[in-house]
Amino acid sequence: MTAAGVRRRIAVINPNTTESMTASIAEAARSVVDVSTEVVSITNAHGPASIESHYDEAMAVPGLLAEIAAAEADGVDGFVIACFGDPGLDAAREIASGPVVGIAEAGFHLATMLGRSFSVVTTLARTMGQAEHLVQRYGFAGHCRSIYACEVPVLELDDPASDARKLVIDYCRRAVEHDEADSVVLGCAGMADFCHDVSEQVGVPVIDGVSAGVLLVESMVKLGLRTSTRSEYAPPLPKEYR
Amino acid sequence: MTAAGVRRRIAVINPNTTESMTASIAEAARSVVDVSTEVVSITNAHGPASIESHYDEAMAVPGLLAEIAAAEADGVDGFVIACFGDPGLDAAREIASGPVVGIAEAGFHLATMLGRSFSVVTTLARTMGQAEHLVQRYGFAGHCRSIYACEVPVLELDDPASDARKLVIDYCRRAVEHDEADSVVLGCAGMADFCHDVSEQVGVPVIDGVSAGVLLVESMVKLGLRTSTRSEYAPPLPKEYR
Amino acid sequence: MTAAGVRRRIAVINPNTTESMTASIAEAARSVVDVSTEVVSITNAHGPASIESHYDEAMAVPGLLAEIAAAEADGVDGFVIACFGDPGLDAAREIASGPVVGIAEAGFHLATMLGRSFSVVTTLARTMGQAEHLVQRYGFAGHCRSIYACEVPVLELDDPASDARKLVIDYCRRAVEHDEADSVVLGCAGMADFCHDVSEQVGVPVIDGVSAGVLLVESMVKLGLRTSTRSEYAPPLPKEYR
Amino acid sequence: MTAAGVRRRIAVINPNTTESMTASIAEAARSVVDVSTEVVSITNAHGPASIESHYDEAMAVPGLLAEIAAAEADGVDGFVIACFGDPGLDAAREIASGPVVGIAEAGFHLATMLGRSFSVVTTLARTMGQAEHLVQRYGFAGHCRSIYACEVPVLELDDPASDARKLVIDYCRRAVEHDEADSVVLGCAGMADFCHDVSEQVGVPVIDGVSAGVLLVESMVKLGLRTSTRSEYAPPLPKEYR
Amino acid sequence: MTAAGVRRRIAVINPNTTESMTASIAEAARSVVDVSTEVVSITNAHGPASIESHYDEAMAVPGLLAEIAAAEADGVDGFVIACFGDPGLDAAREIASGPVVGIAEAGFHLATMLGRSFSVVTTLARTMGQAEHLVQRYGFAGHCRSIYACEVPVLELDDPASDARKLVIDYCRRAVEHDEADSVVLGCAGMADFCHDVSEQVGVPVIDGVSAGVLLVESMVKLGLRTSTRSEYAPPLPKEYR
Amino acid sequence: MTAAGVRRRIAVINPNTTESMTASIAEAARSVVDVSTEVVSITNAHGPASIESHYDEAMAVPGLLAEIAAAEADGVDGFVIACFGDPGLDAAREIASGPVVGIAEAGFHLATMLGRSFSVVTTLARTMGQAEHLVQRYGFAGHCRSIYACEVPVLELDDPASDARKLVIDYCRRAVEHDEADSVVLGCAGMADFCHDVSEQVGVPVIDGVSAGVLLVESMVKLGLRTSTRSEYAPPLPKEYR
Repeated sequence: MTAAGVRRRIAVINPNTTESMTASIAEAARSVVDVSTEVVSITNAHGPASIESHYDEAMAVPGLLAEIAAAEADGVDGFVIACFGDPGLDAAREIASGPVVGIAEAGFHLATMLGRSFSVVTTLARTMGQAEHLVQRYGFAGHCRSIYACEVPVLELDDPASDARKLVIDYCRRAVEHDEADSVVLGCAGMADFCHDVSEQVGVPVIDGVSAGVLLVESMVKLGLRTSTRSEYAPPLPKEYR
Repeated sequence: MTAAGVRRRIAVINPNTTESMTASIAEAARSVVDVSTEVVSITNAHGPASIESHYDEAMAVPGLLAEIAAAEADGVDGFVIACFGDPGLDAAREIASGPVVGIAEAGFHLATMLGRSFSVVTTLARTMGQAEHLVQRYGFAGHCRSIYACEVPVLELDDPASDARKLVIDYCRRAVEHDEADSVVLGCAGMADFCHDVSEQVGVPVIDGVSAGVLLVESMVKLGLRTSTRSEYAPPLPKEYR
Repeated sequence: MTAAGVRRRIAVINPNTTESMTASIAEAARSVVDVSTEVVSITNAHGPASIESHYDEAMAVPGLLAEIAAAEADGVDGFVIACFGDPGLDAAREIASGPVVGIAEAGFHLATMLGRSFSVVTTLARTMGQAEHLVQRYGFAGHCRSIYACEVPVLELDDPASDARKLVIDYCRRAVEHDEADSVVLGCAGMADFCHDVSEQVGVPVIDGVSAGVLLVESMVKLGLRTSTRSEYAPPLPKEYR
Repeated sequence: MTAAGVRRRIAVINPNTTESMTASIAEAARSVVDVSTEVVSITNAHGPASIESHYDEAMAVPGLLAEIAAAEADGVDGFVIACFGDPGLDAAREIASGPVVGIAEAGFHLATMLGRSFSVVTTLARTMGQAEHLVQRYGFAGHCRSIYACEVPVLELDDPASDARKLVIDYCRRAVEHDEADSVVLGCAGMADFCHDVSEQVGVPVIDGVSAGVLLVESMVKLGLRTSTRSEYAPPLPKEYR
Repeated sequence: MTAAGVRRRIAVINPNTTESMTASIAEAARSVVDVSTEVVSITNAHGPASIESHYDEAMAVPGLLAEIAAAEADGVDGFVIACFGDPGLDAAREIASGPVVGIAEAGFHLATMLGRSFSVVTTLARTMGQAEHLVQRYGFAGHCRSIYACEVPVLELDDPASDARKLVIDYCRRAVEHDEADSVVLGCAGMADFCHDVSEQVGVPVIDGVSAGVLLVESMVKLGLRTSTRSEYAPPLPKEYR
Repeated sequence: MTAAGVRRRIAVINPNTTESMTASIAEAARSVVDVSTEVVSITNAHGPASIESHYDEAMAVPGLLAEIAAAEADGVDGFVIACFGDPGLDAAREIASGPVVGIAEAGFHLATMLGRSFSVVTTLARTMGQAEHLVQRYGFAGHCRSIYACEVPVLELDDPASDARKLVIDYCRRAVEHDEADSVVLGCAGMADFCHDVSEQVGVPVIDGVSAGVLLVESMVKLGLRTSTRSEYAPPLPKEYR
């Protein structure tokens, strides 16, 4: 059921199991949506505390999909997968009837409408390959100038001792001055609250995928657009499980 | 000045000089924005009655840019260029401080979040080259399955005698069944009101760039994102004119 | 421990839970390796009976990775993921020290050394998108002429009533005659035994990814080549799980 | 009417309104054409004094197209657009019956026949984006090693105080030594007279688009080749103007 | 030595050994160059009578390079390789100091300045792969709509019984009407004399690489442009031969 | 005829005429094949002593093809072209019935299965262009991080005075640390014996194309896969030679 005045509900799902991250993700999402949009924030009940490898992604996805299926059953209208690797995106599009957007995807799309080029600043160097893969998959290889890693683990981003904010600003500056990026996409849901500060320091648009993603999903829901069920993204066939 | 409750104003500009088209474009935009967003609809004061060639685009752009400059001076927060060739987009980004989105661009971006592939159905065959050019420029060559033209001139789209709606439905069906497109982007601002009808008939998401574009601009304004002024899109230098 | 004369062990893993498929996969692999190579055939203990969607893949991967981790602990030297979507490939490369190859990847690589172009004939149409995605990811978009689906479910491929063999031959013929493909890659581990028959009928090389994959892994093991642990594919960091 | 011995007339059009630039452009063109080719040099009657932004281009194009239409009516056989952004090229191809070539296009084409790779050295950094866009549009992204800007405004190129020649030489040298470019394309019609000097200093072919463009157009006129009027580039439809 | 009034000499080399083909190639070249340009026509002294495979190309190249070396020693200023596979082009650029252009390359370059797209109509189907390879190598994959073969052997093109002209016209028409090509590049030096006739019949520009190539080389010679000797195309190092 | 126990024969052909290089190439090949595979090592009887230019390649190819034709007549089952430019590969595929693999191709294919990216370290800088060309032709432009040349001539690689090994290690290290390559492909058959040493020093997989190539050919022979004779790679037509 839905509170008075609420006309749509969008689930913002944290694929890792760290509640504190979910809280800041939800805050980033709630701060930008309509008064008529309810943000349902969800933490993955099963999986790793943070996602920093292909293995972490793979282990987080079944739990993530279970959360999406539950929210779908509960009538949620659209979904944001709030992890920069966009884990489980294709599978989520099969099981959700409403639109599903990943935060890397969301950040890249908006970046290409704010200039010719963008760069990415992410957490650990080992995740740069997945960012590069997504850039290519979504069609933005010609727009992405560079990808940097500040080498701060996801769960230490909000630890002042990690110096994360300063490192992110340094790499963003490098992307702009050295690689001539017109904007920067922040490569982790945990960087959402760095966004405005970094942008002010560096002087170019800095995009947080969480707030970008929730507005893209809200837009598609308002437009009545749902993932195509023509063939690939139709609901999966029932299977016998062992 | 701004009416009570209005927190942002977005200009939706019809690059051609046909008022009736502006009216339907404005309606499409107003039907989807927030209560807190005012849509300012603008008709180009100087140029051709419709845009169906590179020449028409070129002749429409100075007037279009004058409208944008005026709206910018009037404090408008963001801009939609409501013609499928995205005319003057780069120049508009230089003279507007808020975000600027073209409707082809808008349609393509949303389409790639609703499936793996899309097709385009546009007006005259001679405009297919520009659509193809934009698909490549924005990075979506790997996602676009086909481009079709119904060969109905822009100003006859709403003439029942043109049979436009039926033709568009036929080509959308062909795109889906023959080219395996997951969705269809309608290739003219004048097709905005075909959208839901065509989608129902064809059974895949059908995207109107006008409503998509205004929501993308609204999203960027809410996020405080403006076109990068780093270098290419900084305000143009003053020039001596003859 | 290893039998006398065996100098390397390669695990061929069936990501679905259907033992009969594992048996034919193992047979395809054993029929081509060295006398000094032992093929360890493994069936995923947890997951769907067949993989025909992104969702099926996602649900199969954790079990698949558990099998790989166990085989790795048991000293297996290399791994073949015997499902045409190459599920879990990146994650498997992080947790296995020896080389890991997917059968789609294997088929594409050999195909490009047998001619300028290839086509793919797979099972259900809904899996064509993943095949297209892999073709692009691996760099073979310029070499792939077409992708066809015979619309026979994976588990019915060996059911004579499914007419699968005839349908595959028809589509291979179409790929060669209509799309000018120099060879065909069969798009399912369950098609392994069609290979020589189809090739004879159609008159071009027809590649089964299972036998191709096991020989590629065997080759890398002989060469002492293991997945790079430089950064992205280094062993995943330990994580707290919920 | 045409002077005795003249068998073809080619218009070299300066899209900006600075007569002195037209003069040096015309000189570059006249120095290379046949005795049987007359170069008609034209200065845009309406627009900015120099073109250094997308806005400048947009404002220059209608005047440029008017000049082309007038020259076409006067029986000119082919056209060179002598500004490195190739402004109005598509529209010009619609309204001219003879071939039309832009100087960026001309320079890139010849460069790829003189080696594997080239770089571009242009004027202001803000124009690098357009150069990159044209490189991609024409198909030369795989051939272009780098794009540099000497940050000298177009109208100061011939001012000794600007040190332009030395800066261009420095960047060309950097392109060759650091980026391994086989040749350099000069990124402004106003650099035409630097060409041989820079080439001698740097030791690789240095290409001026103006002289390259007039010879490409002359070649197409000699071959009887005119822009295709099949569909996209057919004469624009008559329109009602406001 | 050079005849009075001759200011440059360009060698047009037929890589096969059929004199009659050389004659028509030379005629095509002579009909378009300046009065001040001498066309030196050369027939390969060693190799196959026609080139219709990679093997034929490979066997023709040493003789072709010997002809180029001899012409170079004789002071020839530039070179056209008059076979559509552009055989030996890279090697020729190393041993010639003047520019070298292949006729496929020449045709593609001009085609992209006459419209958005082109198709190729060549001789035997087995040569289509090389044409496709060259299209990709030169950067024109996004511009080439289709490649057709009329299945007439090179040496039968001028045999009325071969019906070659009619077949070429039919395929050109198909390229224009079915594939929406703006122009057609003829895929064999032996088709030079079909050019104007086919163009008249089909109604789009039809490009003969021989006449296109000789004018491109003449243009580069006039501009003083020679192949870059920076590194890859520097004269080959002396080698001990067996 | 074939020795007892030998079930297949693979020719590893050195396209240059230096016997000592053939010996080390053969050793690299023999060290990795099955007991049931006989490696037939062949030195090109006609051509340059080393291949370091397009010209050298062109002059080596006819002799190389003669060796392949002779080995084919002698019933050899597959072929490795042991020179990093993959000279004559297409022609060889036409005249050999068994599979043919070049060592650049072989190295690139395996590299992409060992990580996301690779770099190449080759001999003379002038050969970098051909390496880049092959990377693009085979589809690996998105996977290749960089190409370096140690500027040691092929025939000095095994001369301790050349310091080749140290230089190769330095460039491999640079590729890994500066360009983030996951692996390195050695760019010359003469570097085969550096492989393990360099890998140990640099800490990433280092791939020798000779041993990679012979195992790829052996794999294809075991699978009964031969080059497609559909059209392009069918045996060349008989020709009259002069």
